Amino acid sequence: MDFRTDLAIERRDVFRKINNIKDEIPGIKSEEKEISSSIHVYKVQVLNSEGEKAIEKPIGNYVTIDVKKMKNITEEEKEKIAYSISSELKDLIKNLVSPKDEILIVGLGNLYSTPDSLGPKVIQNVDVTRHIFKYLPQYVNENDREISAISPGVLGTTGIETQEILKGIVDNIKPKLIIVIDSLASKSIERISSSVQISDTGIIPGAGIGNKRREISKDTLGVPVIAIGIPTVVDVATITNDCLELFIEKLQDEAKSNNYLNQLKEENNYQDIKDALVPKDFNLIVTPKEIDELIINMTDVISMGINKSI
Amino acid sequence: MDFRTDLAIERRDVFRKINNIKDEIPGIKSEEKEISSSIHVYKVQVLNSEGEKAIEKPIGNYVTIDVKKMKNITEEEKEKIAYSISSELKDLIKNLVSPKDEILIVGLGNLYSTPDSLGPKVIQNVDVTRHIFKYLPQYVNENDREISAISPGVLGTTGIETQEILKGIVDNIKPKLIIVIDSLASKSIERISSSVQISDTGIIPGAGIGNKRREISKDTLGVPVIAIGIPTVVDVATITNDCLELFIEKLQDEAKSNNYLNQLKEENNYQDIKDALVPKDFNLIVTPKEIDELIINMTDVISMGINKSI
Amino acid sequence: MDFRTDLAIERRDVFRKINNIKDEIPGIKSEEKEISSSIHVYKVQVLNSEGEKAIEKPIGNYVTIDVKKMKNITEEEKEKIAYSISSELKDLIKNLVSPKDEILIVGLGNLYSTPDSLGPKVIQNVDVTRHIFKYLPQYVNENDREISAISPGVLGTTGIETQEILKGIVDNIKPKLIIVIDSLASKSIERISSSVQISDTGIIPGAGIGNKRREISKDTLGVPVIAIGIPTVVDVATITNDCLELFIEKLQDEAKSNNYLNQLKEENNYQDIKDALVPKDFNLIVTPKEIDELIINMTDVISMGINKSI
Amino acid sequence: MDFRTDLAIERRDVFRKINNIKDEIPGIKSEEKEISSSIHVYKVQVLNSEGEKAIEKPIGNYVTIDVKKMKNITEEEKEKIAYSISSELKDLIKNLVSPKDEILIVGLGNLYSTPDSLGPKVIQNVDVTRHIFKYLPQYVNENDREISAISPGVLGTTGIETQEILKGIVDNIKPKLIIVIDSLASKSIERISSSVQISDTGIIPGAGIGNKRREISKDTLGVPVIAIGIPTVVDVATITNDCLELFIEKLQDEAKSNNYLNQLKEENNYQDIKDALVPKDFNLIVTPKEIDELIINMTDVISMGINKSI
Repeated sequence: MDFRTDLAIERRDVFRKINNIKDEIPGIKSEEKEISSSIHVYKVQVLNSEGEKAIEKPIGNYVTIDVKKMKNITEEEKEKIAYSISSELKDLIKNLVSPKDEILIVGLGNLYSTPDSLGPKVIQNVDVTRHIFKYLPQYVNENDREISAISPGVLGTTGIETQEILKGIVDNIKPKLIIVIDSLASKSIERISSSVQISDTGIIPGAGIGNKRREISKDTLGVPVIAIGIPTVVDVATITNDCLELFIEKLQDEAKSNNYLNQLKEENNYQDIKDALVPKDFNLIVTPKEIDELIINMTDVISMGINKSI
Repeated sequence: MDFRTDLAIERRDVFRKINNIKDEIPGIKSEEKEISSSIHVYKVQVLNSEGEKAIEKPIGNYVTIDVKKMKNITEEEKEKIAYSISSELKDLIKNLVSPKDEILIVGLGNLYSTPDSLGPKVIQNVDVTRHIFKYLPQYVNENDREISAISPGVLGTTGIETQEILKGIVDNIKPKLIIVIDSLASKSIERISSSVQISDTGIIPGAGIGNKRREISKDTLGVPVIAIGIPTVVDVATITNDCLELFIEKLQDEAKSNNYLNQLKEENNYQDIKDALVPKDFNLIVTPKEIDELIINMTDVISMGINKSI
Repeated sequence: MDFRTDLAIERRDVFRKINNIKDEIPGIKSEEKEISSSIHVYKVQVLNSEGEKAIEKPIGNYVTIDVKKMKNITEEEKEKIAYSISSELKDLIKNLVSPKDEILIVGLGNLYSTPDSLGPKVIQNVDVTRHIFKYLPQYVNENDREISAISPGVLGTTGIETQEILKGIVDNIKPKLIIVIDSLASKSIERISSSVQISDTGIIPGAGIGNKRREISKDTLGVPVIAIGIPTVVDVATITNDCLELFIEKLQDEAKSNNYLNQLKEENNYQDIKDALVPKDFNLIVTPKEIDELIINMTDVISMGINKSI
Repeated sequence: MDFRTDLAIERRDVFRKINNIKDEIPGIKSEEKEISSSIHVYKVQVLNSEGEKAIEKPIGNYVTIDVKKMKNITEEEKEKIAYSISSELKDLIKNLVSPKDEILIVGLGNLYSTPDSLGPKVIQNVDVTRHIFKYLPQYVNENDREISAISPGVLGTTGIETQEILKGIVDNIKPKLIIVIDSLASKSIERISSSVQISDTGIIPGAGIGNKRREISKDTLGVPVIAIGIPTVVDVATITNDCLELFIEKLQDEAKSNNYLNQLKEENNYQDIKDALVPKDFNLIVTPKEIDELIINMTDVISMGINKSI
């Protein structure tokens, strides 16, 4: 199945729709809380291999923080979102390592491609301390832990799978936990740059855009991996599918619809739409035109969130 | 009418579809030529006020050069496209001014917003000579003319309409011709970063995305204005409208369509789709995820094209 | 005389040394105050044509704010420096225009050359309001005034003297005051990125590095011009001259000097040193290797200082 | 001894001057050839531990290519310099590995600090092939070898010594040769951005500016390391020392010198000058004000040189 999204919460929704499941999917547990009028937190837990098989995400915890509008955001709103991120992130970290355990932060993505530059930009703003422990121990604060950070580049530029680069570094410097930051693909336009997913199961870079790279996880690196991702792109077939639904809904409201359309709306037409677009080279992956500003704001929010948690 | 495109060729097509016109629109003359398998040139001439009223573009010439794939383009292909641009541009320049007349090149747009940064980036690569005429006349070549260039910024950063900035500069340095470069909106995804429109009628910046700024034209500045534009963005309602057509076409091919859908396909559903998307904040304006690379290639092609023509 | 500095305070010192003047230069009035251990303010007033002739700076006020270390500066220290800048800037503005008079902020320099990029970068961070007055007057606050901002580029890129560009804009949009931001040359290494000069007499861009552009002042633009400048470069002959002095001083301290050297120290050897270096292409203009970080910090401090004052 | 330069040729010259050696230093062999009026090649070979002790550089080959003016350079001149680099580089590569052996290219330095950004920028322009061998073997050309590339960042940003990062990667992907690119410090202003040193002995990053990082060499990584370096910075004491010499020379020419000065000129006053400058915080490390343009040109030249050699 082609979920076309990296978000567990969206995969759950797609699976429920396609399989016409009204309640919880077996093997999945979800909860939801409202932090404020503009911040909602959704937690999806994949409990077992049944849940894993359903939404094609490994067993573990997936927290999605939905925020309204990253554009024209104030410093105060940034602080609030960073606080929510930090609160969820701390919980996951606490479950995996001790307070003094070393953490390696990894910024995935391509600095030279704006929608994919979030990871490398966050790395620039993370407070690293490992070299202070080594060379200036007198400046280490009591509650500090060793933090290091790296932005390994992308396969097209390095010729090396990110997982291979990280494997080498992890074996050599031996952190106890890895936190990975990446740009994701989402299924819905409204989540672009408005959602943060934090999970404790690692990441398969590029999965949401059908360009899978090697998994970065405890299985492959030997240490637990927390992944922080923000959707920045969506493909055109997904947009059309979403919008077609809204369009038919409007026709229904105006009593202009018909049985055929009503049925169309109940189906997931993604694959059919994609099949129609691909021959015309229409199935681009797109990003909002304000992506530069959005990336700047997301970089601030994620960096703050991480720096408050480590 | 909301054409949602800055391209005359697309406005002609929309007008013909909506009004069910099979032949030429009265007041409009079009021609088409194939330069190579990957370069097509379309010329649309608005002849009189009837044509002007139909496609809402002033009387004058609109040349659209369609190219295939700006991504992964070779240096040789760039040269060919630049040659085509230069060939059309020279024709328009020759009709308006003498070979030694001074030209001012203007790069519109926002350097800090990737999809809108084409204009300022082209300015960095244009061969200016006006200061050599003034301060180092011994280095002027026989066939040179005075070229100056400016990138005035955008209203949100300067607080000044671009037209006001240019009016002042034009009155003071008195060029005989202005060439404006801008990023445009297109109606179709396939033209994003694959089309160059050159016109001799000036430009209304932001017209294609419904954010009109003051007209930059002979009427407002007192000297003729050639506009070079490349579509870099498209709105989601336009995408959905386009894709809906392709989707119904596929259903028709598979004999799955019905009368209602067939009729839907013949109509322009843009406005209805937009009305469905706006309440959900879904009607974003988007750009391909490869926009950074596309802008680099377009900057090269347009700069070369201009430098060959002036 | 080749002062090789844009700072009035340094020109005063050079003139006093060369002419062996112990007290105040006729036509010049100076005062000094300590704001804190790390912020000193020097005021040089050129009173008449005698003072003007001495230091080759027009009649008017020159405030120099010396700060310690822009590198590794904290947000709190930035705030303090911005406050000092704002305090001096407000005084100069108040003397020239009324609280509601329109101001145009101009960022001189070249965005693509790091040591010369301060002006364009400050422009990105200035709070412009003129377009809000025009298009969204309901959002204007009671104490706001119309602020516009422009970064006109440099002669080598535009082919147009900055003064010509500004003349046109000023004639068209008619601000009551212009505030110009520019990178300067200094005579001493210790002032590089550690001094802010604010003057009410306009500016001759490039004067300090022997590459004079046309004056930007009330005389040429018709409205008063406040100039804010920070030294970012120094030439090698100036460095050598300064260091030679320190070196001889050290020899004197160690009783290793001689009459010849003592005399050398009392002279200004700048021209002789320059004459020795030029034939070898040694007389480069240089900037500290940390210039990128320094420019970021200076941009913050100057933008904050301006935004607090207007 | 504080050589204050990463260039073997300069260390040889300093050692000869200080020790008043007219001929070759024991344990060192040098030769020189003129490629063109603007390109000179100097080869310094450290033959044994005596040579090693003299200039504090490990046994091996050091080729310095001196070029005139990287500023305002033409494409044709760039090609010529790249050809010279490639010619020397190929010789060193051939001595160390077979034609099909895998190479890892490493760009040292800080992308966000212009004078230190050469390494990361070259990496963006190197033709990597390793991923094509792995995933698209049908596109591999007969003479290709596996090339990978990485830009590991700097200690202040990552908290990890570059050597530690590389050790991990090398152990994991097992290249047969490493080519490192770094910005260097030079002793003379005229070599800033006008010299390329290629050596087969690895590198100690930061050695020339007194900020030594861990050695990157066969000893530490287990595979041979070729280092390509270009001087981009120089410290002020070095400048003053150099200029003092030129200044005394001029005084001698004008018969204004004296015994004391003549003797001063014969000595290396670097340490004394440094001792005079340090207490005043005057001993900055500086770079030419045109560094942005120089880095662009050097990036082109080095990338071309490498791409022609691998």
